[in-house]
Amino acid sequence: MERYCVIMAGGIGSRFWPLSKDNMPKQFLDILGTGKSFIRATFERFLPLVPASNFIVVTNAAYKHLVLEHLPELTDDQVLCEPMRRNTAPCIAYATWHILARCPEASIAVTPADHLVTNECEFQRVIVNGLDFVETNRNALMTIGIRPSRPETGYGYIEVDRESADIIPVKNFKEKPDLETAKRFVADGRYFWNSGIFLWSSDAIMGAFRTYLPDMAALFDQGKADFGTPREQEFISTHFERCENISIDYGVMERSQSRFTVCADFGWSDIGTWGSLYTHAAHDETGNAVSGHAVTVDTTGSVINIEPGCQAIVQGLDNCLVALRDGSLLVCRLADEQQIKHWVERL
Amino acid sequence: MERYCVIMAGGIGSRFWPLSKDNMPKQFLDILGTGKSFIRATFERFLPLVPASNFIVVTNAAYKHLVLEHLPELTDDQVLCEPMRRNTAPCIAYATWHILARCPEASIAVTPADHLVTNECEFQRVIVNGLDFVETNRNALMTIGIRPSRPETGYGYIEVDRESADIIPVKNFKEKPDLETAKRFVADGRYFWNSGIFLWSSDAIMGAFRTYLPDMAALFDQGKADFGTPREQEFISTHFERCENISIDYGVMERSQSRFTVCADFGWSDIGTWGSLYTHAAHDETGNAVSGHAVTVDTTGSVINIEPGCQAIVQGLDNCLVALRDGSLLVCRLADEQQIKHWVERL
Repeated sequence: MERYCVIMAGGIGSRFWPLSKDNMPKQFLDILGTGKSFIRATFERFLPLVPASNFIVVTNAAYKHLVLEHLPELTDDQVLCEPMRRNTAPCIAYATWHILARCPEASIAVTPADHLVTNECEFQRVIVNGLDFVETNRNALMTIGIRPSRPETGYGYIEVDRESADIIPVKNFKEKPDLETAKRFVADGRYFWNSGIFLWSSDAIMGAFRTYLPDMAALFDQGKADFGTPREQEFISTHFERCENISIDYGVMERSQSRFTVCADFGWSDIGTWGSLYTHAAHDETGNAVSGHAVTVDTTGSVINIEPGCQAIVQGLDNCLVALRDGSLLVCRLADEQQIKHWVERL
Repeated sequence: MERYCVIMAGGIGSRFWPLSKDNMPKQFLDILGTGKSFIRATFERFLPLVPASNFIVVTNAAYKHLVLEHLPELTDDQVLCEPMRRNTAPCIAYATWHILARCPEASIAVTPADHLVTNECEFQRVIVNGLDFVETNRNALMTIGIRPSRPETGYGYIEVDRESADIIPVKNFKEKPDLETAKRFVADGRYFWNSGIFLWSSDAIMGAFRTYLPDMAALFDQGKADFGTPREQEFISTHFERCENISIDYGVMERSQSRFTVCADFGWSDIGTWGSLYTHAAHDETGNAVSGHAVTVDTTGSVINIEPGCQAIVQGLDNCLVALRDGSLLVCRLADEQQIKHWVERL
């Protein structure tokens, strides 16, 4: 079996306004100042496991040039363009049918483009073990669980029957919990964060689509003769919009009887919020995460993100966010950052 | 006697960083969004009283082009350039000696370039009365007092003997008071804010320089043959730096025996601080003074000043200042704005 990696890179990351905008979403940014964009780091993290020619990036047509710029190792036909956003199930179906046109028997890792992993060695060990597992257990759908380090209410949780370092069956998926529930989950030891990283064989995911999302499977089957040919994009342009807007979690994982997980611990974060960026970025002596040319005075626990070439003085703020990019400024309390999207709409 | 107006426009307005900077000081800005820069508004305020050809602007050489841009009615020789900043006494001496070379008997109004007046009719009435007074009382040095509307600790005060609507002698000048003293001054009725606007005849101010700042008078007398000729700038370049760095208030007004004031009420502010700008700018329904394209959320009593073409979301601030100009951002508590200068130095 050949190993493939599908990078889902169609998001617009509106929660990181003004750094991420429609024309420059989060996956193409180096928000943490590591020297690499998220998508580049994701690619390099999988590159020891998957040959460059077996990466498939699914994104929006508007971002195709950015993908190829950040991942110059890829060829044009490795970047699949969704005509519109339709959540993760159609995205993964598209990539799966595309891969099957090239390779009848593949094992596939599916990953978001914009997450952080700090322990890449451990990451690779976990993924290799997982790929070995799904290559042996040809109907297994596997999702990588993350050992929770805090009662995070922003993540979904995976429940298992018993604490274990092995790959074991999933008992349940749990929606984002309230704080009390999250605390219970963390204390219990049988609940992991759902990382959104999936491993499976092409047989397993194809079978799951046919069983749990038969309309979507039928839709992509119509294009079977077109996938992997110059007609693929035309087929997608015509038919993709008819896909149900549904996540792979709701559409497949929660319905499957053959799902597995492993409790991993490789320094993962989805960096889905400025607060999580604060957690993962370096702090100065007053507890601020400062990026760019800024003087802070009487300011603590804040994220200051100033674009190169600009400068800032920030005084008198606690647990706030100050971000300046391309003439767009955001000043807000970190605790209220869930509202950013709404404020941007008002603007 | 011919009437002259001297506009002192050499300040750098560092308290309004990042709006005002060395290369664009406050007098050339339209901070309040009136459609006119402060210097333009100052000029237009005096124009019904003084012919355009009798305005003299004293500034720094670096700002000469800005003065002529904002006041295209002036000719090159009406803009006097100080080689360095030397406070108001040398500035006024320079303008006085320059005017005397053109006109042996003048009445002169001296004004800062960057103050706000909202009732121009009343202003003109007060100034005309004052000019009439100093043209009749040829040794009078007059300073315009402002009826205090609040116990401002940032201004100097003028004390008189009795409440009066007339032009009356000054009893004392009072330094910036503490809050308790300022409250007493406001309640008393015999204390006015010192506006920094002066009226006098050329005889009176010349005599006062000779009496109270004889070294400075002697220095300018050396250049008598040069003033009003092409050699004037050369003389100033060589000699100006030897002037004592002293204000007209300390150097002349506090020492004079012939000083007068009037309690005026024409909506004056020196707009010396962001706080005073807040006082004078229009407020939205949540008490914020917003200029530029900005959305405010859970924000009250704040000044938001966003440069044209930029945009901002400001949330969770009370009594703060957010100013963005030319890639320079300031976020601070309004109460601490006296420190801006120091923060800019740190930056």
